Amino acid sequence: MAQYDFGIVGLGVMGRNLLLNVADHGFAAAGLDVDAEKASAFEKAAKEGQQVKGTTSAEEFVGSIKTPRAIMLLVPAGKPVDAAIQTLLPFLEKGDIVIDGGNSFFPDTDRRVTELADKGIHFFGMGISGGEKGARFGPSMMPGGDKNAYERLRPVFEAIAAKVDGEPCVAYLGNGSAGNYVKMAHNGIEYALMQLISESYDLLKRGLGFEDAELQPIFEEWNNTELKSFLIEITSDILKKKDEGSDELLVNFVSDRARSKGTGKWTSQDAMNLQVPVPVIDAAVTMRDLSAYKTERVKAAELLKVTPTEIGAVDKQKFVAQLKNAYYFAMINTYAQGLAQLFVASKEYDYELKLEEVAKIWRGGCIIRALCLEDFRKAFQKQPDLPNILLDEEIGATLLAKQGDTRDIIKIAVDKGIPLPAFMASLSYFDGYRSATLPTNLVQAQRDYFGAHQYERTDREGVFHTEWK
Amino acid sequence: MAQYDFGIVGLGVMGRNLLLNVADHGFAAAGLDVDAEKASAFEKAAKEGQQVKGTTSAEEFVGSIKTPRAIMLLVPAGKPVDAAIQTLLPFLEKGDIVIDGGNSFFPDTDRRVTELADKGIHFFGMGISGGEKGARFGPSMMPGGDKNAYERLRPVFEAIAAKVDGEPCVAYLGNGSAGNYVKMAHNGIEYALMQLISESYDLLKRGLGFEDAELQPIFEEWNNTELKSFLIEITSDILKKKDEGSDELLVNFVSDRARSKGTGKWTSQDAMNLQVPVPVIDAAVTMRDLSAYKTERVKAAELLKVTPTEIGAVDKQKFVAQLKNAYYFAMINTYAQGLAQLFVASKEYDYELKLEEVAKIWRGGCIIRALCLEDFRKAFQKQPDLPNILLDEEIGATLLAKQGDTRDIIKIAVDKGIPLPAFMASLSYFDGYRSATLPTNLVQAQRDYFGAHQYERTDREGVFHTEWK
Repeated sequence: MAQYDFGIVGLGVMGRNLLLNVADHGFAAAGLDVDAEKASAFEKAAKEGQQVKGTTSAEEFVGSIKTPRAIMLLVPAGKPVDAAIQTLLPFLEKGDIVIDGGNSFFPDTDRRVTELADKGIHFFGMGISGGEKGARFGPSMMPGGDKNAYERLRPVFEAIAAKVDGEPCVAYLGNGSAGNYVKMAHNGIEYALMQLISESYDLLKRGLGFEDAELQPIFEEWNNTELKSFLIEITSDILKKKDEGSDELLVNFVSDRARSKGTGKWTSQDAMNLQVPVPVIDAAVTMRDLSAYKTERVKAAELLKVTPTEIGAVDKQKFVAQLKNAYYFAMINTYAQGLAQLFVASKEYDYELKLEEVAKIWRGGCIIRALCLEDFRKAFQKQPDLPNILLDEEIGATLLAKQGDTRDIIKIAVDKGIPLPAFMASLSYFDGYRSATLPTNLVQAQRDYFGAHQYERTDREGVFHTEWK
Repeated sequence: MAQYDFGIVGLGVMGRNLLLNVADHGFAAAGLDVDAEKASAFEKAAKEGQQVKGTTSAEEFVGSIKTPRAIMLLVPAGKPVDAAIQTLLPFLEKGDIVIDGGNSFFPDTDRRVTELADKGIHFFGMGISGGEKGARFGPSMMPGGDKNAYERLRPVFEAIAAKVDGEPCVAYLGNGSAGNYVKMAHNGIEYALMQLISESYDLLKRGLGFEDAELQPIFEEWNNTELKSFLIEITSDILKKKDEGSDELLVNFVSDRARSKGTGKWTSQDAMNLQVPVPVIDAAVTMRDLSAYKTERVKAAELLKVTPTEIGAVDKQKFVAQLKNAYYFAMINTYAQGLAQLFVASKEYDYELKLEEVAKIWRGGCIIRALCLEDFRKAFQKQPDLPNILLDEEIGATLLAKQGDTRDIIKIAVDKGIPLPAFMASLSYFDGYRSATLPTNLVQAQRDYFGAHQYERTDREGVFHTEWK
């Protein structure tokens, strides 16, 4: 009876694709879904000779999987995860492993790890990135949980993950909710990079009057350089796509109200809890929020008309070259912030993350995959305890080479009245981070003035309070 | 026995000062503290003829107050508030009122309102701003709770509050945690204004090489103009204060590690929950966090040395005049964000806030008191449902007049390598808010490309998905 290597609960697009990926790699794959159509659709989608089973019975499903069982949940985050666990529980045995493959909020994962550990069951939180196609042909996977139990999962995960230079984009990341946390930071970075691309597009199109036809080749070209990355690549695709039956770009008809599902917000909010600055991510979250205020923005556009400062003729080729450097600069600062957050979170939450592994498995399969991740990987290889990639000499040198163009681009946007909050946040982060002394001494003096909050001194130990007036 | 008009639990500096303020206005004032010394210190500090009592007995304290009782807690936020409530509960009667005067996290207040309502007791959350001196001689107070019960508190609160043009800086704000929420937003704005002042100081001193002696007169002068505000005033005082036995300014010896107690962070985090953009506040929270990374910043300063762009001689007088306009511009944008957050929070949490009242009671007593609040008050008087003060015609005209100088100041800082995250966030907020169309259509297209998240169109109803490639 117990003949299946791996099971998935929830045979929506992601679950089905991932399970077909499992089957493709020679594993016997079982699926469970309350919807009988989805269960049979999975079976039908499998290739001849593959050992697959789709069922609506939890008992049959659990019973068919080899012990210790490896069962992944691909259901929406929140209550559905708890519900799925409850459905399986009566049939699970000690030593079985349940993996949550959704974007669960990390404290929920920690709770579930504890609850299931009481019953002898290992619970994993695993971020999966790559969308539907990634699930089918190779995602990046970020598992966290019990280190020994991971050995049961390793063969399957390493087989189905994306590969870069023959290395799988999956690795055991750490304890408890480590996997969900890494995926959350991944998504925070994703928000920020998308915002940076949209700002680049805005400055080109609205700011400098580039024609639609001029935009696409820029991103296509960038993707052949050190900017090579999934998000630049799909931007190039999007800027090619015409609206059906029209000569105009489809993207021109897409509403500017950008939705979100919460992971970017969680990244910013938890960074604030950990006191880690991630201002480019914050700016991206903020701009998605601002995008919803359409009625107010339309009114404000009438009321607050600004004549752009005259800056004379712009050499378009030079401008694009500078913007390219500015994007690279801002992109590095964005990864720096997300990775610095993981550095602190790992200590705070005892994840024992290896940031080299994180950079390694982000190189392929996931939404933020990019050529530069290999540089970050090398930086952490050299210095596993590097708190911030800005402190790596090679990365630092790259930033220094590109900061001048970033300043020029921001100044042009300031003159043109085009909002570049994410680019600006990347520059002020860089300038703040490389400030041995910040003017926050004045903030601390103000706090002491009005709230008697006391202050420390630079020249001697102790805590002081002053009657300033 | 029951002869006292008002009681305070917790006779630390804030509690004692506030209770002395109550006594000064002819009310019989009772205080409770576990520390007998504090209880008697309060009695001794009262003037002759004032009816005051300090005790360590909860039973005696509660019994001495006229029913329905009005008792304020001035204990640290969190568990001490719950502990103080438990101490009083055995002696309280139906109809009594307990007011939490601390910076409690607003969901805690909502929980306590519900818990005490079950026992027939009214619980108020009330933000108090003004520091020790404000408590003694007139704070700004932000009470929220049961509207009818407020009548018992009104005479005391209106007597002890700061006055502006004869009007007290206190008003019933709304239901449940309305008072705590308004105070939280107040503190978020406070963080942002402090950050903006510190950036101004940094740009003057580190960026343009202003001497210490040149700094103080600038802020003193600003405080005689439309920038008049408590935070500018105390900055002028701070920049006057010499270190003991030295000719150098004390602030030069204050550590640049700026601490925080959480209210700024809560403001940003809840703004993200409500999807309200408050990027200047976010930037202020972030910079306090970055200030703690001293070791990394010192290393980065070595590694990431940037030669400032040559910008030629700067006309100092003109520069200061432009900076003044930029500060005013950024300040208005900051209040706009905090008030917009209150606008949304009021709907989301059913506070029924009147923003005119909020602007009115912030005009005096509190840390963010400023001349401009009268302008905001008038704007809300004209349009009680104004979602954002940027949409007020007069305020809009002021911003338009000052945005050009703001752009110049930011460009100079970009050239000089001085981080101005809060100024930048104020400008990109302004430019984003006045953008009828944002480039987030591209973000939404990207989301649909990799995650099949669908999109809306500008030209017709519906929800769409496209195979972009």
